Amino acid sequence: MSESPVKLIGCFASPFVHRAELALRLKGVPYELVEEDLSNKSDLLLKHNPVHQKVPVLVHGDRTAICESLVILEYVDEAFDGPPLLPSEPLARATARFWASFVDKQFRESWIAMFSADGEAQVASAREVKANLTLVEGQLPEGKTFFGGDSVGYLDIVLGGIAHWMEMFEEITGVPLLADEEHPALRRWAREYTADEIVRQCLPDRDRLLAALTPKRDTFVSIAKTMATQK
Amino acid sequence: MSESPVKLIGCFASPFVHRAELALRLKGVPYELVEEDLSNKSDLLLKHNPVHQKVPVLVHGDRTAICESLVILEYVDEAFDGPPLLPSEPLARATARFWASFVDKQFRESWIAMFSADGEAQVASAREVKANLTLVEGQLPEGKTFFGGDSVGYLDIVLGGIAHWMEMFEEITGVPLLADEEHPALRRWAREYTADEIVRQCLPDRDRLLAALTPKRDTFVSIAKTMATQK
Repeated sequence: MSESPVKLIGCFASPFVHRAELALRLKGVPYELVEEDLSNKSDLLLKHNPVHQKVPVLVHGDRTAICESLVILEYVDEAFDGPPLLPSEPLARATARFWASFVDKQFRESWIAMFSADGEAQVASAREVKANLTLVEGQLPEGKTFFGGDSVGYLDIVLGGIAHWMEMFEEITGVPLLADEEHPALRRWAREYTADEIVRQCLPDRDRLLAALTPKRDTFVSIAKTMATQK
Repeated sequence: MSESPVKLIGCFASPFVHRAELALRLKGVPYELVEEDLSNKSDLLLKHNPVHQKVPVLVHGDRTAICESLVILEYVDEAFDGPPLLPSEPLARATARFWASFVDKQFRESWIAMFSADGEAQVASAREVKANLTLVEGQLPEGKTFFGGDSVGYLDIVLGGIAHWMEMFEEITGVPLLADEEHPALRRWAREYTADEIVRQCLPDRDRLLAALTPKRDTFVSIAKTMATQK
């Protein structure tokens, strides 16, 4: 299995694709990154992820593709040799999975709400994002650099969006989140994460990312306003 | 670990609690079911699931509790002996996890929308539910009784709500879903699932379930209508 070629269908600017890519790099798995144009989806994407038509998709050999970033992380951990991504102990695995689910549901909703709002609604949702950051920060093991302990692990990978993407969101919205002084441990973690040698190999360039995300802000706000008036 | 006492904080009528309970029964793990009153949440629940304050919660010995039904299924599979719940092969595991996520996101949203709607909106969302049922049905392995093969496995457990609860929703809303002739394989599966000896031990009684769910219908519709006029 592990000798079959690996293709990752992804797109620049996606923290979900970053998860899959980083997992492959941490395991030392060679892969081909196939850049997807989400405004004009390829037959390759539609064939391999007909249900959601989203990236990332991992295609391993000629077998069915694996979709959804959290499912891909588990698959990469199970299908390839190399350092484990998830902890080994069942309770620690369950805790990591619980927080991954928290990030993809509760945290993500608050983040999108903040990015879509302005004025008072933005202040309220920024408060929500920060409360969620506090909960996440509480999971950093004492005296350790990473959520995974001494090296980047599953939960660090899941949180990669907070480490690198959040800074762009702060700049675009003008709202400090992690930039505030309230989460010193999480800020330290974000610095360590983005400075990690393997992580850096697959982090999108800051300026290019900012340029790609900035126009999305107006679209989000306008969609949110239309929904608020029409529904 | 496996000798520590197991408590399951749950509540009658929840298909998510059913998942956790069935997983424990399939593994042969003795447990105490602690019935939670969700309209007056207990200190036990608030202590063990402070983030979401929801059931099910699995408390194993005096260690941190495990929350969220899908996380609990993985934990039970890893922490206890007995027949495996997830398949053994990485690709099959990934596929099962993908469909579990589909059920808890896309399928669940369409189901809630249907239960909350009436009139034309209900017809549209019933169409959506059925399209999702077709996708799920396509995952039944040919010639096998269960999604897990010859016996109830992880994806069967996740789909338990469709097997037993859906019938009540059909009765309450008056909209046939699985009762239609469109999904013969899934209907056959639902019959096999609800007839399984271990499954039956932890399926809520039909009449009591119907009585518990019926009043919720008006609440859902009224909330949906209020949201539609006020937003």
